[in-house]
This record gives sequence, C-alpha cells and structure tokens, in this order.
Amino acid sequence: MRHDTLRLGAFFYATGHHVAGWRHPSSEADGGLVLERYVGWAQKAEAALFDLVFLEDGSGIRDGNLRSSERTARSTHFEPVTLLSALAAVTSRIGLVATTSTSFNEPYNVARRFASLDHLSGGRAGWNLVTSTTDAEAANFGADRIAQHGDRYERAEEFVDVVLGLWNTWDDGAVIIDKESGQFSKPDGFHPLNHRGTHFEVRGPLNISRTPQGQPVLVQAGASGPGKDLAARTAEIVFTANQTLDEATEFYGDLKGRMGRFGRDRDDLKVMPGLFPVVGRSEAEARAKFEALQDLIDPVVGLALLERMVGSFDLSGYDPDGPVPELPEANGAKSRQQLMFDLARREGLTLRQLYLRIAGARGHSQIIGTPAQIVDEMEERFQKHGADGFNIMPATLPGGLDDFIELVLPELRRRGLVRTEYEGRTLRGHLGTRPPAAHAPRQG
Amino acid sequence: MRHDTLRLGAFFYATGHHVAGWRHPSSEADGGLVLERYVGWAQKAEAALFDLVFLEDGSGIRDGNLRSSERTARSTHFEPVTLLSALAAVTSRIGLVATTSTSFNEPYNVARRFASLDHLSGGRAGWNLVTSTTDAEAANFGADRIAQHGDRYERAEEFVDVVLGLWNTWDDGAVIIDKESGQFSKPDGFHPLNHRGTHFEVRGPLNISRTPQGQPVLVQAGASGPGKDLAARTAEIVFTANQTLDEATEFYGDLKGRMGRFGRDRDDLKVMPGLFPVVGRSEAEARAKFEALQDLIDPVVGLALLERMVGSFDLSGYDPDGPVPELPEANGAKSRQQLMFDLARREGLTLRQLYLRIAGARGHSQIIGTPAQIVDEMEERFQKHGADGFNIMPATLPGGLDDFIELVLPELRRRGLVRTEYEGRTLRGHLGTRPPAAHAPRQG
Ligand SMILES: Cc1cc2nc3c(=O)[nH]c(=O)nc-3n(C[C@H](O)[C@H](O)[C@H](O)COP(=O)(O)O)c2cc1C
Ligand SMILES: Cc1cc2nc3c(=O)[nH]c(=O)nc-3n(C[C@H](O)[C@H](O)[C@H](O)COP(=O)(O)O)c2cc1C
Repeated sequence: MRHDTLRLGAFFYATGHHVAGWRHPSSEADGGLVLERYVGWAQKAEAALFDLVFLEDGSGIRDGNLRSSERTARSTHFEPVTLLSALAAVTSRIGLVATTSTSFNEPYNVARRFASLDHLSGGRAGWNLVTSTTDAEAANFGADRIAQHGDRYERAEEFVDVVLGLWNTWDDGAVIIDKESGQFSKPDGFHPLNHRGTHFEVRGPLNISRTPQGQPVLVQAGASGPGKDLAARTAEIVFTANQTLDEATEFYGDLKGRMGRFGRDRDDLKVMPGLFPVVGRSEAEARAKFEALQDLIDPVVGLALLERMVGSFDLSGYDPDGPVPELPEANGAKSRQQLMFDLARREGLTLRQLYLRIAGARGHSQIIGTPAQIVDEMEERFQKHGADGFNIMPATLPGGLDDFIELVLPELRRRGLVRTEYEGRTLRGHLGTRPPAAHAPRQG
Repeated sequence: MRHDTLRLGAFFYATGHHVAGWRHPSSEADGGLVLERYVGWAQKAEAALFDLVFLEDGSGIRDGNLRSSERTARSTHFEPVTLLSALAAVTSRIGLVATTSTSFNEPYNVARRFASLDHLSGGRAGWNLVTSTTDAEAANFGADRIAQHGDRYERAEEFVDVVLGLWNTWDDGAVIIDKESGQFSKPDGFHPLNHRGTHFEVRGPLNISRTPQGQPVLVQAGASGPGKDLAARTAEIVFTANQTLDEATEFYGDLKGRMGRFGRDRDDLKVMPGLFPVVGRSEAEARAKFEALQDLIDPVVGLALLERMVGSFDLSGYDPDGPVPELPEANGAKSRQQLMFDLARREGLTLRQLYLRIAGARGHSQIIGTPAQIVDEMEERFQKHGADGFNIMPATLPGGLDDFIELVLPELRRRGLVRTEYEGRTLRGHLGTRPPAAHAPRQG
C-alpha cells in the first residue's frame, strides 16, 4: 500500500485530445488562439489542485498532409513558453510545463527562457525536453530530414548539461541588492560556465540569476533506451504512453532501475503516463459520449494521425480494412511506432480500426466508464508501481476537464489518492522530488 | 505646424536608465526579477496612454568586466518575450515591443514567438530587431567573436524576409472553425514558404495562423548605413540615439529619404529617439535630483559602461582625467561609438566627464529641467522633423516614470501634443502606420 498521493497534470492539447474534439458543440475550438480560453482552463485546473499544466509542442506543422491539417484544430496554436508566461501572471500555484526541442534551439536561449518563466511564476516552471521526430520540422531549420535518433539524443545529452550548468552559474542568494554599498550581487556570485563540448561552446554566465526553484523541473518524454537513460539521469517527471498494466509496470521498473547508476533516488522521478478518460454517470453514458466523438472523425484526419504515429510513412496506398502493414523502423519516435504495432497485434485491428482506436488517446491509456471504473484503474496502476500519477488528457475542452473535476476527482479524494490542498508554492514542492545534480556523470 | 501627435514609448531598462538608478532609495531595484513590479509600471504607462512598452535585450552579460556587472542592476533580468507575454495577460491596450537578436536565433522560432505574442495580446506585439554587438554574447553561441558588421546585416536582411514570409504563410481569415463540415481552416488557407537563401532554408508554413496585426510591428535600432537601409525597408518604428537637434533632423531626413526606394511612404515609419528626462517643479529641483543620482555612480561601473559604448575596448590604462583616446573603429555598434566621440569633442570632455555625461541617458538625449523646458525641446524636435515621438527613459523606476506622467504629460496634453484616449486596440493602430510589403525588393 503506497502512502503517497497521485500527481496530476492537466495536459491541454489543442482544444481537446480527441482528434475530432474541436467539432463537439460544447468545445471552445478557438482555444489555440484566444488567451482567455487557456486562462479559464488553467484556473479551473488550479482550483482543482492539479500539480501542473502540460503543453506539448512541435517546431512546425508536423503533419505532412496539409489537406488533413486544415481539418484539425492543431495546425495553429500559441507557442507554449509564451503562453505559459501569460498564464504565470494569472495563476499562483499550479506548475507550468512547456515542451521545447533540443534539435532546433540553442541551449543558452532555452536556459534563459525557462529561467525567466521560473522567475515570472515564482518557481513553477518545467521544461519538457524533446528531440523532435519529424522531417517536416527539420525542413523549417535548414535540413531535409531529422537527424538520426542516436545523434539527436547525443546532442540532447550535451544540451541538457549546458542548460543545467547555466542555471548554476549564479549562486544561491547571490542577488543582494545592497543600495548602500552599491553591490547589486555578491562579489563573485556568478561565474562563467566555459563549456566546450562536441556540439556546443558556451561561456556563460547566464544573464538571469538563480531561479526560485534553483533549476526548473526537467521533464522527459522519450521512451527508447537512450530516452530512458537521459530521463534517469536528469528528469523529475517522465511523461509516457502505456496501454496495459504490464507495459506500464515494466517501463516504470526499467526506468527507475536506471536511476541508481546516476546516483539518484527512485522517488526523485515521477512517472506520469497520459490518461484519456471519458466519464459518465453510467458506463452507457460514457460510451455514448465517446461514440459521439468517434462519429465526428474525418477519415483523412484519422489516417494522417496514424501515419505520424507510425513514423511518418504514407499509408494511403493500403486497404483501410486490411491489416496494419509491416513498415521499416521509424527514425522519429521509435517507441511510439512500437506501441502502435503492439496495439494492433494485441487487439487484432485493421488500419481503420487502429486509427479509430487511437483517435482519442493517441496511444495513451484510454478509459471509458464511470468514476469508480476510472479510479479503479488509476489506483491499480499506482499501487502496482506502473505510475506515480497521470497526465489527464481531456477529450474536449472545457467539457472533458469539467467532467474529470466534477466526477472523477471526488472519487479520488474519497479514496485519499489526491491532495486536499497545495502544500507548497513551487512545482518541485508539489512533486516532492529533489533535483538531479547538475554534473552527474553521463555514464553511471 | 504638424497636426499629428507624438508617439510615446515607455522604455523600461533594468530598474531605471541611470546606471546608479537602482541605488536610489525610492527605486524598486528588484524589478528585473519580480513580475509585480513590471505589472505596476506597465499598467501605469497604459493608464497614461503610452503607445508601447519597450524592452531592450542582450544575449548574455555584455559587460566583459564581471566586477562591474556585480555592481549594476542589469546583470540579471527577465527574458523580454516571456516578460511581455506575462504583461499581455494583465494589460489591454498598450503595445508590447521586445528585442530579439538575428545573430543568435532561428527565424522560424522568432516568427513563432512574436506571432504568439501578437495573438496573446490581441495585436499589440512589436519586434525590435538587433544584430547584437558584443563578443561576450557571441561566446554563448559557439563563437569567439561577433561576426563582421556587414555580415551581421546581411544575415539580418535575409532573416527578416523569412520572418515576414512566415507571417504571411497563413491567409487573412483562413481560420474558420466550421464544426459542421469539419473544416478548421479554409481549404488552401495556409501555404509553404519554401525559402532557400544564403543563410536559411525554411519550408514553412508557420504553425500559428495570421496574427491580429497581420504581421507584428518591426522596430529597428541600428543607425549605420546598412542599419538605416534595413529600417527604411522593413521597420515601422526606429529607435535611435541623437544628441543635438541637427543630428536628429539629419538622421530623420536621411532615414525617411531612403524609404521611397522601397516603395514606402514616409509616414509609415515613426522615428522615436530615446529621451532621458529628469524633471522638477523648478530647474534647481531637477538638477538636484540628477546630482543625487550622479553622486551614486561607482567609477568602475561608469568606466565599464563607457567601454561598452565605444566598442568594448579596455580603457583602464588611460588617465580618467585625460582626453578620450583615439580608438580603432568598432565592429559592434559603429553608430554608438561615433556618437560618443562626437559628444566628447563637442563638449570637450575627459574620459571621466564622458562617462558621467552618459551615465543616465547612455548617449540619448538628456533633458534636466521643468516640464515646460522638457516639452519645449520635445516640441521643437517634433516640429522640426527630428522625431515623430520619443522613447521615454525614466532615470529610476517607478519614480522617473511617475514624474513624467504627473509633471510632463499634463503639459504635453495642454499643448495638444499627445492623444487623450486610445483610438485603436493594436500597436499599429496607435502608430497609424501601414506595414511594409512582405516581399519588397531588398535593393530599391
Ligand atoms: C508521451 C510522449 C509525449 C511526447 N511529446 C512530444 C512533443 O510534445 N513534441 C515532440 O516533438 N516530441 C514529443 N515526443 C517525442 C519524444 O520526446 C522523443 O523525441 C521521441 O519519442 C523519440 O524518442 P524515443 O524513441 O526515445 O521515444 C513525445 C513522446 C512521448 C512518448
Ligand atoms: C538606440 C539603440 C538601441 C539599441 N538597442 C539594442 C539592444 O537592445 N540590444 C542589442 O543587442 N543591440 C541594440 N542596439 C544595437 C543595434 O541594434 C545594432 O546592432 C548596432 O547598433 C549595430 O548597428 P549600427 O552600426 O547600424 O548601429 C541598439 C542600437 C541603438 C542605436
């Protein structure tokens, strides 16, 4: 029996995770472009004591098929660090996690922006580090294709070292603002970094002082071997997609097992898989809600989503009612491709059935049922060490979020599985983790 | 007699422009790290109907001398785009202009962030394009020295073309959110850019739709020949440092004279020099205020400021009470170096006298006097076509801003030189300019 509570993230994707969610009559489908919508959703999540808001990101329209992009709500959206900066001004406790790619940015700029967000929010910033996966993104940065999987992670490993190093170029308490003596910061309170590596040479120091959290929280979402190593070394949250309990516990054990090599304690990393709940007062009501969304799926959009999930291969030549074809190994998201193949095999799905199956949860765990059914699964995954919490993926916004807060949260509270008030003021305070040492060795 | 009104920017630098401003007993010296301070200042400026808030930026601690940096308020500060995003959430009319360098960023990322700020703020974003000037910044991005002046501007010219092009990859009105048909944006409503140039290859489209302003307002601050050409082609605001009326009218005429070559109208660019006012009810009171600040200047800090202004040369070997030495031409800020030499020659200043002379305004026009005296100079510069408005540089914050609002603004209003209410909701609406065509030829 675990005595901890579940960590909860409010994962806002477009205007709902279901690929057709924006078409639901109740959805605030302009949310990707209207700040007030996000303010409303974030303030609701904060009132419900979520640990964090989570925003994914891409460095371009990732869908090669523009015909399909025109028919989704995801082709246009706020850049996440600017959006969270705006939300920082109108929230006070909830954590703010944004995704930024190590493949298309410079570490000095990334270190600065998240340090700035941490100061703006009084210690609530988190950086979800991704290496990016699509050629469509690479084409916005001078390359025809995305770099090789291994090379991307090699750059990411060095990138994160530079960022952690820069966050430490200012000592704790260095800013003293002594008007009398004219000493704004302590003598020798900040230092160059003098990093000289394979991909980066960065002198430092950072032009923003040590942040309220000391260093913003690192989040990681890659699930291949190199992805898990990077997470075990540096992350305090891992966001992951699992289907079955077995998959979840295996991933969880594997990941936490890697932490010792980096001198870290298992409790200092929280595994928070995605969870796509569709909740009703009865199972039938939940099913009906889900089917109403499934009916809105455009086949072009469904297929394009699947194409991206299996590694940006063109599937239009295959019979939609035939089996899922054998495909070469993806260079982009290896772990996500494998998850798709496993799912199709396990459930015996055709191409069409597979895209319908993932149109909501996109490979994450999907539970359609009553509050008790949903909480049963959450509790089991938590107790059996398959998760330390969940990133909740509302099917529609604000409806799916409201449903979770009004129907599922009371049941979680009744079973003592979630907090009843914020104890801390920082994201790390909510998580109860300790940051990784800035210069833990890369190979343990 | 001009019938237009003056445009006003609130230029917030650290916690006041005077190099020792932070040491003043009334200054909110923690403003670089505490969001509430900036919220207060920006809301005051908005209540006073300023056109915009202006934030400068550097991609690192620009002062080579860390000993001096410890004794200024500028070594640590928010990253400006994140800060303005936060301010977007708590203001509604004032323009929001942030500086970003073309030398250390990718155009796709810059286009996205300012488009995002424009959406977040409902059409109030402006981008102050700089090419950066110091080796200290370059060292944070893998280079020992900053690129040559000409090369930086060549990159900047292409950079701005890509950004303007990306802002136009989405048609006006493309986002229709038709829930019935499932068409989120119009068929063929966004397009690739397919830019292939010398420095950049960028496919596009942008993953954020056309912004409220169509394109955020471009601001430019370089004053060399290439700087003026870039501004004449693309900018709607030019921020500049002039001392004398003659310098100002010459710069103004030269700059506006270049616009025709790019098919642009003179009124579509507003020249807004910096203005550092120290105001008192009497001239003696103003002088006393200024002297109190001058007395707080640390010699180490004053000399380091001057070193940066003349092109990052080491001046510690020269007699502070001797003449300003001859120095090689700067590779960084050519125009600023020239301005320093001219000022020293014109006023016959020693090294020490020169740094004391620029410790407040940093080369911008400095007026110490009564409201009438300050407004006389503003009016003359405006009427004689030396300026279309001013970037007001408060010596201290909030004191210098309060003084300007309480003492100078009423006099400006009395003479009909400033607006009495906001007419528009966008930054461009305040300016009354028209944007440059996205693909105006580079050579006119
Ligand atoms: C749950 C999950 C969420 C992810 N979110 C993003 C994202 O928002 N943006 C992105 O570019 N990549 C995202 N990724 C991709 C990963 O960060 C990583 O680059 C990719 O999965 C390849 O690494 P892997 O093979 O180790 O999984 C996500 C991956 C997972 C598993
Ligand atoms: C009034 C003014 C303000 C400037 N502000 C900045 C700034 O915030 N950040 C920066 O890196 N450079 C700044 N610069 C530098 C210019 O953008 C430009 O890179 C530099 O002046 C070199 O170009 P020039 O020789 O054409 O002036 C400023 C220059 C002027 C004249």
